[in-house]
Amino acid sequence: QVTLARQGSVMQVSKVNALDYEEFIEVFGNVIEHCPLCAAAVWKHRPFSDVRHLHEEICRFIDDLPVAGREGILRCHPDLAGRLARAGQLTKESKREQEAAGVTSLTPEESQRLDSMNHSYREKFGFPFVICARRNKKEAILEGLRTRLNNSLEAEVEKGIMEVKNICYLRLLDLVDHEGVESRL
Amino acid sequence: QVTLARQGSVMQVSKVNALDYEEFIEVFGNVIEHCPLCAAAVWKHRPFSDVRHLHEEICRFIDDLPVAGREGILRCHPDLAGRLARAGQLTKESKREQEAAGVTSLTPEESQRLDSMNHSYREKFGFPFVICARRNKKEAILEGLRTRLNNSLEAEVEKGIMEVKNICYLRLLDLVDHEGVESRL
Repeated sequence: QVTLARQGSVMQVSKVNALDYEEFIEVFGNVIEHCPLCAAAVWKHRPFSDVRHLHEEICRFIDDLPVAGREGILRCHPDLAGRLARAGQLTKESKREQEAAGVTSLTPEESQRLDSMNHSYREKFGFPFVICARRNKKEAILEGLRTRLNNSLEAEVEKGIMEVKNICYLRLLDLVDHEGVESRL
Repeated sequence: QVTLARQGSVMQVSKVNALDYEEFIEVFGNVIEHCPLCAAAVWKHRPFSDVRHLHEEICRFIDDLPVAGREGILRCHPDLAGRLARAGQLTKESKREQEAAGVTSLTPEESQRLDSMNHSYREKFGFPFVICARRNKKEAILEGLRTRLNNSLEAEVEKGIMEVKNICYLRLLDLVDHEGVESRL
């Protein structure tokens, strides 16, 4: 495939707005991990005034899904430092994020603790623990996982989806020019 | 990845119901082309009584999406005998289906006609022409495309999604034991 997204330079919003749907999905298909459907759905809402507007449309689409769809989005995410990470099968975006957080270089003790809590989390909620790894270092991640294990299902769907939206925003900032736009939500 | 789906033998429903969500997404992630979110969303509705029940849950999820989501599903599909087919980049499911319909071995005249109509269709509707290739031979596909070009946007979202559901059902029959279940919808 043509790799518009891998040219290393961010794209002006005017260029984003000129992409046909195939190009758009190619560039933005993984801003929600393994869910190109989200980008495919919002393409119709172009022109976008800026990267924030694009993000808002993606968030609105997610909020308008049936709750099973929001849980489904969480299930499409890999475990932190889990099976896919160990097998070298993360998406390039996830790999970079997990490395930045330091969860790919844990001590054996930390690694065991993370595995055990990831397992408990999945057993309780039926989806993986999702956290914006670029905004949390490994200590905060381990502590967050320990705390969030006590939450209700409803609270964790909401919390997990909030993290998905943060991850999405940072991935969008890597792709689209954002001069003059707040880099935090 | 472990390739449960590629072992060549169909799976009993009891085995389907015992899959964890990662295994389930791995097996059923492409029954809706490039939309693992659909499988991920319906996993919660197990146990499924049979393959038809699983299909019904996927259809219900699609019907409950905002209309932008249904258009998004269509946009995740490749053109028939289009760029991805020529580049050898179809999913294994699409490749098999397009070959079965005969659209990968068109005469130069047919190929040009299909390209031209695919282009007109995308321009008019903002998503590709989707048809269940395993239930239509190339003559029916070319004729269907010619006719459907005259439809309204609303009619084509509905018609395209009906085809997506047929494609999904045939893909499910390849994966799940269906003795005693109707093979047509």
